[in-house]
Amino acid sequence: MDFNQELKKKIELVDEYLNQYLPEIDNYQSSIYQAMRYSLFAGGKRLRPVITLACCEAVGGEVLQAISFGCAIEMIHTYSLIHDDLPAMDNDEYRRGQLTCHKMFGEAMAILAGDALLNKAFEVAVDASVKNGTAPEKAMKALSVIAHAGGTEGMIGGQVVDLEAENQPIDEHHLKYMHLHKTGALIIASAKAGAIVGGGSDKEIEALAVYGRNIGLAFQIKDDILDVEGKQEKLGKPIGSDASNGKSTFVSLMGMEKSKRLVKSLSEEAAAQIEIFGDRKWFLTALAKYLIDREY
Amino acid sequence: MDFNQELKKKIELVDEYLNQYLPEIDNYQSSIYQAMRYSLFAGGKRLRPVITLACCEAVGGEVLQAISFGCAIEMIHTYSLIHDDLPAMDNDEYRRGQLTCHKMFGEAMAILAGDALLNKAFEVAVDASVKNGTAPEKAMKALSVIAHAGGTEGMIGGQVVDLEAENQPIDEHHLKYMHLHKTGALIIASAKAGAIVGGGSDKEIEALAVYGRNIGLAFQIKDDILDVEGKQEKLGKPIGSDASNGKSTFVSLMGMEKSKRLVKSLSEEAAAQIEIFGDRKWFLTALAKYLIDREY
Repeated sequence: MDFNQELKKKIELVDEYLNQYLPEIDNYQSSIYQAMRYSLFAGGKRLRPVITLACCEAVGGEVLQAISFGCAIEMIHTYSLIHDDLPAMDNDEYRRGQLTCHKMFGEAMAILAGDALLNKAFEVAVDASVKNGTAPEKAMKALSVIAHAGGTEGMIGGQVVDLEAENQPIDEHHLKYMHLHKTGALIIASAKAGAIVGGGSDKEIEALAVYGRNIGLAFQIKDDILDVEGKQEKLGKPIGSDASNGKSTFVSLMGMEKSKRLVKSLSEEAAAQIEIFGDRKWFLTALAKYLIDREY
Repeated sequence: MDFNQELKKKIELVDEYLNQYLPEIDNYQSSIYQAMRYSLFAGGKRLRPVITLACCEAVGGEVLQAISFGCAIEMIHTYSLIHDDLPAMDNDEYRRGQLTCHKMFGEAMAILAGDALLNKAFEVAVDASVKNGTAPEKAMKALSVIAHAGGTEGMIGGQVVDLEAENQPIDEHHLKYMHLHKTGALIIASAKAGAIVGGGSDKEIEALAVYGRNIGLAFQIKDDILDVEGKQEKLGKPIGSDASNGKSTFVSLMGMEKSKRLVKSLSEEAAAQIEIFGDRKWFLTALAKYLIDREY
C-alpha cells in the first residue's frame, strides 16, 4: 500500500472533521471562530490525529471511531501553540510562515481563542462519543488519557519546565524530561486514545504508547536538527532561531551526530514495538520512517 | 434547618475536595500548582459548586456524587478570572483584595495556570466519575453540559461579546445576552450537572436550569448594584470601577430602581421553578434570597 496516499487520505479526513466540528459561523461568536480556525487550519502536519487514526486501525478498529478524539487532540495542540506564541510567552510573530494568532487578531482574542480550542476539544470528544454510540467506558478512558496528557503531568508540565529553564543552562536529562512532557505526552496520548477507542488490549495500548513516546521524541530531536540544517523556505521559519533565542536543544547539548543516531535508534525501537500488529503495522512503520526523513 | 450552617458545610466540603484534587506538590511542577492554588483559594464564594451540590440533593442525590463536577466548574470559573485579569484583557491588579495571579506570578505563569485549571477540571471530573462508579452515561451527559457552558456557546462566547463591546454603547438586550453567557452559562451548568449526576428527571433538570439562569442573572445585576452602592472594604475592590472603566452595567442602562426590581423578580421566578421539589427545595430557596441580600 502507498504510504503517501494513505497519509494524505487520513489528513483529509482530519481536515474534513475539524471543519465540521468548527465551522465558519455568522453570529456574535464569528470573530473567535475565525481566530480559532485561522490557527487550526494554518498548515499543521496533523501528526497527532493521524497517529490516533492509525493506532485505532492497528488494533483492528475503524478510523471513524477515533476521529473525534484525534481532532480533539489537534485542537489541544493548536491552543498550546497559540498561547506559546503570546508576547508573555515566546513572543513569536510568525508560525509556519504566517502571522501568529495574536499578531492577526490581537492578544485578548488569541488568549480566548486558545482557551476556546482547549474547551472545544472536550466538547467534541464527549459529544461525538455520545452521538456515535462509543461505549461510554471506553470514551471515559480515552478522555482521561487525553486530559492527563494535556495537563500539569503532561504538556503544561513541560511548558512550565521550559519557561523556568529559559536562558539557563540545562542538561540532556532535563531537556529530555521537558520534551517528553511538552511534546511527547500528547503524542503518546494520541496513540493510546486511538488504541483505546479501537478496542485494543492493555498490551496493545501499552505497545502503542511506547511507539508514540519514541517517535514523539525522535520528532522533537529532528526538529532541533532541522533548526540547524533545514531550509528556511521549507520550514516556514528562520533557521537557527533556537540558538539565537538562547534555547538548549538536543543538537546543542549532544552534538549533531549523536542527535542523528538517537533519532535513528528511537525510530527503530518504535518499529520493534509494533511487531505484534503483523500486517496491520505497515502504516505505523512507514510513519516512523517518514518522520526521520522529513525536511520540514 | 439553618441556611448559613448548611452553606458553610457545603463550602467546606468543596474546599476539602479542591484541596485534594489540587494538592501542594514538590516537583518540577510545584510553581504552577502554587499559582493555580493561589487563585483557586483566593476567597471565592464557591457559588457554583454549592449550586451543584444543592441541585444534586434537590433531586434526591447525595452530595458526594456531585462534588467532582462542582469542583471542576469552580476550576473553570477560576481559570476564566485569571485570564480575564491579564494585561491584554481587563488588566486588573487586584481581585478580592489580593494581587491577581499575573501580578503575583508573572504573565506567562498566569496564562499557563489558567490553561492548567481548565484542563484539570476535565481531568478531575472524568477521573472521579470512573473512581466513584458514576454511571458513565450520566457522567458523559454532565461533562457535555459543562463543556458547552464553558465554551464559545457559553462563557467564552460572553467574554467575546464583552471584549468587542468595550467602550462602545450597548443596549439592555445585548448586556443581558453577554451576562447570560459570560456568567450565566456556567451557573446554569452547575445546576444541571448536579441534577444529572443526582439522577434527576428531564423535567427536574430543566426546572433547575431555569432556577440557575434566574439566580445567575440576579447575581450579576446585584454585582452591578454593589459596584455603585457597596462598601469597598466588604467587596475587596474599589467602588465605581465599572463606571471608571467605561463599562455598561444594568444600573447604568436601566437605573438603580429598575435593577433592584429585576433582581427581586428574577429571584421570585427562581423560587417558583423549584416548587416541584417540595421539602427538598428549602436550601435552594434560601440561597436565592441570600444572593439578593448579600453586601459583597
